[in-house]
Amino acid sequence: MDSAVIQYNAEGHASGKMRSDLVVSMSHPFADGPWEMATDEGAFHGGEASAPPPLALFVGGLTGCIMTQIRSLAKRLGLVLSDLRVETRVQWTWVAVGRGYESAPKGFEIDVKIESSAAKPEIEALIAQARRGCFISQTLGHQNEIRYRLKTQEGWTNV
Amino acid sequence: MDSAVIQYNAEGHASGKMRSDLVVSMSHPFADGPWEMATDEGAFHGGEASAPPPLALFVGGLTGCIMTQIRSLAKRLGLVLSDLRVETRVQWTWVAVGRGYESAPKGFEIDVKIESSAAKPEIEALIAQARRGCFISQTLGHQNEIRYRLKTQEGWTNV
Repeated sequence: MDSAVIQYNAEGHASGKMRSDLVVSMSHPFADGPWEMATDEGAFHGGEASAPPPLALFVGGLTGCIMTQIRSLAKRLGLVLSDLRVETRVQWTWVAVGRGYESAPKGFEIDVKIESSAAKPEIEALIAQARRGCFISQTLGHQNEIRYRLKTQEGWTNV
Repeated sequence: MDSAVIQYNAEGHASGKMRSDLVVSMSHPFADGPWEMATDEGAFHGGEASAPPPLALFVGGLTGCIMTQIRSLAKRLGLVLSDLRVETRVQWTWVAVGRGYESAPKGFEIDVKIESSAAKPEIEALIAQARRGCFISQTLGHQNEIRYRLKTQEGWTNV
């Protein structure tokens, strides 16, 4: 396989005060999952803290993604990593607007800590290539358009 | 509070074959968490399927994020939603390049299903505003730069 389309799907159902019960699965290039998970919010946001907030899953997914790529590529390149730790910091700005608010991304920092007997230039090249393989890192580097549709009792609309 | 910086942090440690154990927390504007989670990969990717793959957390986080915003904003606007379901589909392309591969985002679709006695234009306006409040949706609409640093036995480097 030289190229493929990868598709992930999530189905969320609102329960509790702010909890969302989620069933996530992969449907292309083959079926995998489903994985059940949930998000909730703390009391300050009207929730019951019964699950991590959505942003925690997002930052955790980004971190796991680059870690998978580093290990997978190291194996293919024959580099042995005796330890791998990654620390990620993500900042957003939040501004109240009328009765709602608007948010915008402010900064992404990913620190990779590697113990290996491989030469430093090899490890640097490993990270540079792993970034381009990480689906989430690549996604964040693009300006993406999200198509939203709304279904009410009256049918579907693009919103 | 009219504006704020929100910061989330993740610390990941490689364990097992492809598993990453993650501790995620919020540090600004106040401390929350930590939330422990993990990612793993299926056997096709050299993993042991002991946890969801990173992309599942990412798509689950995106879905939970828009659901939180819709419910939070509906409450502030005085709209009663008797049911809320969201279906998200995300596609990426994957291309083999040398001994590694490169990936790119291809499409994002979010279907929102709402049962409410509110008028349809009110529900449409709700979704349009919730999109702008959702941190992850806003992040995906920007071209973000991620700063990567590498620490080896020889110290830190920007990579």
